[in-house]
Amino acid sequence: MKAYKELSESELLALREELNKEYEEAKAKGLKLDMSRGKPSMSQLDMERDFLGVIDADSDVNTEGGVDCRNYGLLDGIPEVKKLMADMLGVSDDMIIVFGNSSLNIMYDTIARAMIFGVIDGTPWCRLDKVKFLCPAPGYDRHFAITEQFGIEMVTIPMGEEGPDMDLVEKYVNGDPAVKGIWCVPKYSNPQGYTYSDETVRRFAALKPAAADFRIFWDNAYAIHDLYEEGGDELLEILSECEKAGNPDMVYEFGSTSKVTFPGSGISALASSKANLDSIRKTMTIQTIGPDKLNQLRHVRYFKDIEGMKSHMMKHASIMRPKFEAILKVLDRELGDAGIGSWTRPRGGYFISFESMAGCAKEIVKKCKEAGVVLTGAGATYPYKADPNDSNIRLAPTFPSEEELSVATDLFVLCVKLTSVEKLLQNKQE
Amino acid sequence: MKAYKELSESELLALREELNKEYEEAKAKGLKLDMSRGKPSMSQLDMERDFLGVIDADSDVNTEGGVDCRNYGLLDGIPEVKKLMADMLGVSDDMIIVFGNSSLNIMYDTIARAMIFGVIDGTPWCRLDKVKFLCPAPGYDRHFAITEQFGIEMVTIPMGEEGPDMDLVEKYVNGDPAVKGIWCVPKYSNPQGYTYSDETVRRFAALKPAAADFRIFWDNAYAIHDLYEEGGDELLEILSECEKAGNPDMVYEFGSTSKVTFPGSGISALASSKANLDSIRKTMTIQTIGPDKLNQLRHVRYFKDIEGMKSHMMKHASIMRPKFEAILKVLDRELGDAGIGSWTRPRGGYFISFESMAGCAKEIVKKCKEAGVVLTGAGATYPYKADPNDSNIRLAPTFPSEEELSVATDLFVLCVKLTSVEKLLQNKQE
Repeated sequence: MKAYKELSESELLALREELNKEYEEAKAKGLKLDMSRGKPSMSQLDMERDFLGVIDADSDVNTEGGVDCRNYGLLDGIPEVKKLMADMLGVSDDMIIVFGNSSLNIMYDTIARAMIFGVIDGTPWCRLDKVKFLCPAPGYDRHFAITEQFGIEMVTIPMGEEGPDMDLVEKYVNGDPAVKGIWCVPKYSNPQGYTYSDETVRRFAALKPAAADFRIFWDNAYAIHDLYEEGGDELLEILSECEKAGNPDMVYEFGSTSKVTFPGSGISALASSKANLDSIRKTMTIQTIGPDKLNQLRHVRYFKDIEGMKSHMMKHASIMRPKFEAILKVLDRELGDAGIGSWTRPRGGYFISFESMAGCAKEIVKKCKEAGVVLTGAGATYPYKADPNDSNIRLAPTFPSEEELSVATDLFVLCVKLTSVEKLLQNKQE
Repeated sequence: MKAYKELSESELLALREELNKEYEEAKAKGLKLDMSRGKPSMSQLDMERDFLGVIDADSDVNTEGGVDCRNYGLLDGIPEVKKLMADMLGVSDDMIIVFGNSSLNIMYDTIARAMIFGVIDGTPWCRLDKVKFLCPAPGYDRHFAITEQFGIEMVTIPMGEEGPDMDLVEKYVNGDPAVKGIWCVPKYSNPQGYTYSDETVRRFAALKPAAADFRIFWDNAYAIHDLYEEGGDELLEILSECEKAGNPDMVYEFGSTSKVTFPGSGISALASSKANLDSIRKTMTIQTIGPDKLNQLRHVRYFKDIEGMKSHMMKHASIMRPKFEAILKVLDRELGDAGIGSWTRPRGGYFISFESMAGCAKEIVKKCKEAGVVLTGAGATYPYKADPNDSNIRLAPTFPSEEELSVATDLFVLCVKLTSVEKLLQNKQE
């Protein structure tokens, strides 16, 4: 196959006609498929049905320490679940608060708390003229939605295979006291699936923030979400690196079992220093009587320990891996030599990131939608939904069945080709 | 029995000696009992063990409309649970958002939201010089803890058998634009067990607030928590009264199943007007992917409908009622003619409220504690933990067994007598 850029105008016109015909045929099929969100598939959910019955009418509902999980008490989590979540994040039990079913909710509340009360003894952010967050991008749309809602100014930081551009991160964090935070998905990043290198993590730990209340929002959403038994990415544990570097309070780390057990029926955790956790417990004890301990207990009873959880994740992987590979195979075959896009090959997480030619992403997503395949909105992976190159598209392979996925990917590839040809023709005519 | 006030100094001295002896004997028993919080007892929790197994590995996990409750989706609750919570609060389904396991958490977040974003189009409260809340007292300590944490000035409003002093409420709400809210537990109030009269509810509905963003925080925590099959208190439904009175957006109503199923593993709901709910959904969709739908499903499958829930509440009542009656019997017998205290006789809820002689509550609670019986801290039922008369004590009969309760009440009565005698002697000597 020739690279599209080398095609003459007449070749492009012929190709466009051919692709347009294919596209009209695809539209006529009346597809209705969704590749927009990182949702586990039915087969993943069915595979763990036993979780639902792990606590029943005859179960012992006490913690190992004898606390009745049905009643009030244990604000920050039952000890054995602290241990489980600590092991998941690679930290010690006393650095964990267990929360409810949504780590996003912890992140939101952590920022809300900083807005109203400040971070530890800092000025409440709502009293400041300007608060800025660094946003490595492409990144997670829901992170950006939170900072946008709070009126926090978002500064885009380019993402690379080793993580965010650390020269820029250092410049902003160490130089600008209005910079109060940075959003990170450090392992199998959303959407690229990149894992921060040890060097990147060490440079994070060694930051010298201009603001004492600067915090790294370390969303370790895919901590144990490998697609392969062997050769999964390894992420350096940041809390101990920060401790070593004299920045013990600089990180809020988040994790959850939303994609381990069930989305919306999992448990979440915050890992941080004692000073940070103590400060949070002080407001938390006013906010709630504590999260659902019976659901915490379900998790311990079902997994027993981190080894149980990890081997469970391999069952997820066995369902997800073929889907990732199927997409990659089609992309390689159909677009490998065309020079009209590039894509990532993650070894874990929930997404593949696709880079189209500049100025094509919106149109590709639109064309897919018109033919019945919903992708994540183009631009969603950037702050303010504004992708400066209009080139990034997030592919979420997990929810559709393998068969649906194959149909959806064929359509995606077709839309990439057609849009690219239209773009190249447009460029020639300009 | 003579009223204590009519006793001579020598009679009081003799009585003190006798009571002191009894108290020393009681202390020697080394009791360890807790009447401090409104916690269901083990027998209540054991009675509903079947709830735990109502969803198991073989269950259909779809809503009636076919949504898989294990996966993401349905931000504001599954329809059949909206119906259940609507029936519990006596409103229509479309006035309900279902939340997680804690109605306290909804209240906290509702105030946090008002602080940061304002109520609908109002100025964020954090930008105002002064925000005030009216606090009918004695009231619920956790309400006051929330407003205190947010730096909201609390104005105490006296509680009577028909509800808060409405002349005062009208004066403040209609006259002072800094008054943004009022805390109410309108049915079986905490701690007195009073239910607001129809007249009180109508006067609430007819308020003409000076602040457009004034809201009534209507914590209907004991909506279906009757102690008796017949003759339970009836509360007029406030949302429709407000609608009629031209104040459709004035109320946030809260409810939960924390004391219907399990504390910490129940579900909670907010009932309000469409305008209020729409505004909340706008921030909620950024804050969370939604509450645990499997736990919502457990509630529908277990209760079927509101009738099932109400008959379940009668099982709770059959366990709780004898405890309330046991306390009342001891109080009547031991203190009925002594003129050193009065108490309420609720027909529902979780508490009995005791009024000692002025200046005695702290000392009574202290004496009880020293002899091994923990009561709610004296003062806790007032804003800033400051009971102006130092006379209110909240008794929580539910958690101890009947036998423990009898021992604890005997001690309580003894401490009331001893403290009152000491007070009367002190008054005589002044």
